[in-house]
Amino acid sequence: MENFADVKYVLDGFLFIIMGALVMWMAAGFAMLEAGLTRTKNNATILTKNISLYALAGIMYYFIGYNLMYGEGSAFMGSIGPVVVDNSGSYPTMADFFFQMVFVATAASVVSGTIAERMKLWPFMIFVFVLTTIIYPLQGHWTWGGSELGGLIAGFSDFAGSTIVHSVGGWAALAGTILLGARKGKFAKDGTVRPIPGSNLPLATLGTFILWLGWFGFNGGSQLALGSRDDINGIAMVVADTNMAAAAGAITAMILTELFDKKVVLNIVFNCALV
Amino acid sequence: MENFADVKYVLDGFLFIIMGALVMWMAAGFAMLEAGLTRTKNNATILTKNISLYALAGIMYYFIGYNLMYGEGSAFMGSIGPVVVDNSGSYPTMADFFFQMVFVATAASVVSGTIAERMKLWPFMIFVFVLTTIIYPLQGHWTWGGSELGGLIAGFSDFAGSTIVHSVGGWAALAGTILLGARKGKFAKDGTVRPIPGSNLPLATLGTFILWLGWFGFNGGSQLALGSRDDINGIAMVVADTNMAAAAGAITAMILTELFDKKVVLNIVFNCALV
Amino acid sequence: MENFADVKYVLDGFLFIIMGALVMWMAAGFAMLEAGLTRTKNNATILTKNISLYALAGIMYYFIGYNLMYGEGSAFMGSIGPVVVDNSGSYPTMADFFFQMVFVATAASVVSGTIAERMKLWPFMIFVFVLTTIIYPLQGHWTWGGSELGGLIAGFSDFAGSTIVHSVGGWAALAGTILLGARKGKFAKDGTVRPIPGSNLPLATLGTFILWLGWFGFNGGSQLALGSRDDINGIAMVVADTNMAAAAGAITAMILTELFDKKVVLNIVFNCALV
Repeated sequence: MENFADVKYVLDGFLFIIMGALVMWMAAGFAMLEAGLTRTKNNATILTKNISLYALAGIMYYFIGYNLMYGEGSAFMGSIGPVVVDNSGSYPTMADFFFQMVFVATAASVVSGTIAERMKLWPFMIFVFVLTTIIYPLQGHWTWGGSELGGLIAGFSDFAGSTIVHSVGGWAALAGTILLGARKGKFAKDGTVRPIPGSNLPLATLGTFILWLGWFGFNGGSQLALGSRDDINGIAMVVADTNMAAAAGAITAMILTELFDKKVVLNIVFNCALV
Repeated sequence: MENFADVKYVLDGFLFIIMGALVMWMAAGFAMLEAGLTRTKNNATILTKNISLYALAGIMYYFIGYNLMYGEGSAFMGSIGPVVVDNSGSYPTMADFFFQMVFVATAASVVSGTIAERMKLWPFMIFVFVLTTIIYPLQGHWTWGGSELGGLIAGFSDFAGSTIVHSVGGWAALAGTILLGARKGKFAKDGTVRPIPGSNLPLATLGTFILWLGWFGFNGGSQLALGSRDDINGIAMVVADTNMAAAAGAITAMILTELFDKKVVLNIVFNCALV
Repeated sequence: MENFADVKYVLDGFLFIIMGALVMWMAAGFAMLEAGLTRTKNNATILTKNISLYALAGIMYYFIGYNLMYGEGSAFMGSIGPVVVDNSGSYPTMADFFFQMVFVATAASVVSGTIAERMKLWPFMIFVFVLTTIIYPLQGHWTWGGSELGGLIAGFSDFAGSTIVHSVGGWAALAGTILLGARKGKFAKDGTVRPIPGSNLPLATLGTFILWLGWFGFNGGSQLALGSRDDINGIAMVVADTNMAAAAGAITAMILTELFDKKVVLNIVFNCALV
């Protein structure tokens, strides 16, 4: 460490590692939230999906996804091949890979929750394979990957992945639910909704807190740098705002469910805090 | 990043963010500990309280509490109004707000556990509102807020909130329990105590470990700066001491319960590790 | 903070604290994994063991273990006495102590899982006492402690404790299981194995994710320094590799159990991800 560029390099890399670890931790949050809000009989499948999607996302994004997204290639796609370490840039390659990898896993987790209780393990794994190897990296290349395609939408900017991670995960999840249909027993013959209550509220609460914590890493780390006054000021603002947004969502859900349902509905509070 | 003052500014701000995230995580610890040590039928209420107190504390402390505590005002109180970002000082405003906010939430959590199983949700929320908007910020202004009132007690010093956070939370909790009385069924007609065992020891253990971890953020972050040899030496000492104190509490509780109750009583071990 | 040596000192110390906190968190992971994969009736004992081994390890390593391992002494052992703070070196003493202490606790946790369901609390505590006070520090002195005994094995190098922590824990666990024998009911009279399924898969999954996260601290922190480009490059590589290894273990276990058992066996996936 001999100059301020070295300090910045170290701090930027450390931000990726620490914030990335918080985002990795969100995988546990999704697992707990989903297991807690579904029926006990489906616990094993849901837990297996959450462990295995995180594992598979990491492997596929290393071998194909990362360079397909960020490698030099055409406007349509990046390059083919696994991550190549080149630490001559402004941050350690593997720190960036780690942070980007936990993002793609999050996109897959969004889908996992949506199709909970109605998809078998291996078909879901094939889906995760396609999402993390092809879909996510391709659309990521068009935006964060710097492709000129991104320029087609004037003024497009996505600081922390609300389009690239969450919307992509959401559209994939919508496609999945259209294909799969509702859970058996969700609707009575006359079309009325039958609530399927969660089996384990403490678990779901734990998942909510884990995800709430993980959001600090997700959004705060999306500053992508720590080594300047502007960066830490930005990270601080982002983290505080993230907390305020979740808090306001939770309190609003409490008040609205109290008004409309005559009692506070905890799983709606969870969802409103986290979305 | 051009000089060592910049480096210090970044590191001090980052300390607030990381240690504040660990303290935020204590909210999950309180929720798990309380749900695990009370009866299953009260789980939903207790979990809702813990989510909602954290949410409400953040909102009220942002709009009123923070400046009532730290804003310029009279000896009695600070100023009225939400947080105003001013990053010209020695740390990012929002990083400091985030760290202070999780402290006030902790004070409210102390009360949540004490009045568990005997207070409805909305009255508790009114209490949290008063505690986080008025009580905590006012007494905080007299001490950490720099009011001359603090000078009335010669030599008063509170490094990490043992008075300002924990004692205030404790007195509020005591007031609450005096008003509410004991849990129904806690005492037999002849006055003997009926133990109400916890419903879920794994959950309570998880809560204990979460809080143990969170203490490193709570006490370590109370150094309030990272960017000097003295600061990191202080933080290291504080974190190691925090661990030793908890460890000694746990081992002492193990030995004493073995001697007096002829078996190790786990919930006493939890409490002695954490207090 | 006046020069780059100060910056490096602060960053190196901060690495020990943050990564050490992640490793401490592994104690919760072991507790949840073990409680989830054993029978409910043994939960209380297993949870107590995991809390108390972490507590006892911290105390004994402070008073005896740390200096027996790293203090100046003979080739066989270091010095006798508690930790002495000397911050004139290249890192804060207590930050190093904290990081080394959570390592010895991990070694004890390895044993805890292995002898689960077949050892009473206090005999286990005596074992933890011996392991953390004598066995671990002595063999650690011969290697990481810089004793010339370490030179007897040409080319011996242990970056993150695969021998000094995990193998030592494993051998101690093997000795324990040989002494204790199998769990009652594990084998039928004709010698066939009776599976003892876990009681709580969500808990075991949570434990797996906690340990997966903790490995980033364990291996990443073993770089032992943060304050240079080489250090952060190394940490980033280590963290990404740690994740890839766990992911590959999990996916391999999924495929193999699907092939041989005709279904994915979750507790084998857990173990293959973590080992």
